[in-house]
Amino acid sequence: MIPTVTVFERSPDRGRGLARDMRVRWALEEVGQPYNLRLASFAALKEPAHRVRNPFGQIPTYEEGDLTLFESGAIVLHIAERHPGVLLPEDPNARARAIAWLFAALNTVELPIVEYSMATILERDKSWYAERLVMLEERCRVRLGELSVHLGNKEWLEGAFSAADLMMVTVLRRLEGSGLIEESPNVAAYVARGEARPAYKRAFAAQREVFESH
Amino acid sequence: MIPTVTVFERSPDRGRGLARDMRVRWALEEVGQPYNLRLASFAALKEPAHRVRNPFGQIPTYEEGDLTLFESGAIVLHIAERHPGVLLPEDPNARARAIAWLFAALNTVELPIVEYSMATILERDKSWYAERLVMLEERCRVRLGELSVHLGNKEWLEGAFSAADLMMVTVLRRLEGSGLIEESPNVAAYVARGEARPAYKRAFAAQREVFESH
Repeated sequence: MIPTVTVFERSPDRGRGLARDMRVRWALEEVGQPYNLRLASFAALKEPAHRVRNPFGQIPTYEEGDLTLFESGAIVLHIAERHPGVLLPEDPNARARAIAWLFAALNTVELPIVEYSMATILERDKSWYAERLVMLEERCRVRLGELSVHLGNKEWLEGAFSAADLMMVTVLRRLEGSGLIEESPNVAAYVARGEARPAYKRAFAAQREVFESH
Repeated sequence: MIPTVTVFERSPDRGRGLARDMRVRWALEEVGQPYNLRLASFAALKEPAHRVRNPFGQIPTYEEGDLTLFESGAIVLHIAERHPGVLLPEDPNARARAIAWLFAALNTVELPIVEYSMATILERDKSWYAERLVMLEERCRVRLGELSVHLGNKEWLEGAFSAADLMMVTVLRRLEGSGLIEESPNVAAYVARGEARPAYKRAFAAQREVFESH
């Protein structure tokens, strides 16, 4: 059964692969699962027809037969569970550890990164912008520093590449252009290793193609 | 095997049950699993001995034999998977939907709530505080409104009570005292239903007891 993924018709990142559909596309490429697309405008995402798929009016959503999923974390985990040993280790403890890192990417590392990137979009014209940006950069630096210590000389977060790395790399990429990632050379190298994977490149090219053709 | 959960020795919420160990305690009470505690000061959480358990120096962590987990979402999911049919439905599609809602609680609903509550702690003395608070309240209202529409007259997010409800209720409780939850009566009633569960009450009393005895 070929799943359908809902993505932005015109991604606000202008094809830089920073939207959350990139996570799902990358996971599908890693497991070798073809997929169909539903392209949606911003306005369409807020319509009742899409709210049935995602009550919060966001991308990505994932449809496969009777099952409709939302939340990039849940979709990536679902894809990983369907293909044991590819994006999650088969050993139960190693699997649980990989899932812990998946949640860490989304709930501990992404949180200050989203706050930072939201400020650069929504608060740029505010009187407090410069002063607050320093605080937000510092909060990102704390998490990046902790991640850097954990990574050390490791290639991936724990053992082989997993759904956790896929998620962490896409979360970190949201800081692209800020200069913050480059402050931790091993974190920058980790992101580059993710981006060098053939499945990542195919996913990136596919989302870019959608942006360029609309 | 009795797991060990690391919690704050003195929770900064002063025993209101808003710290993230509450999620793990509640899940353990729902499945009837006794647990041991490791009490940690703020300073101890940032020490290398705890960083081995959680590289980001946070609570809660969960230890069970050779397995050490961090991230409340991952720990609750792990507990739910160990007890099929209690905190996750056994039907595969219903299970995947519950997990989608678990991620929605942590990555879509908690995000503006954390930003709001962090501002009330860290930015209270800033010149921009009042103006920015209005923006943050509005971002919370958007998510609460969407959640309210989805809930309608439902008792729980989807079908029977699940790990997703446990997570969503604890995420929403972080807004306690803001008045924002009360603006959506069905969301307020949903939170109250969660708080009325015997397992919630046992977990709440247990965390309160730690705070009061330290």
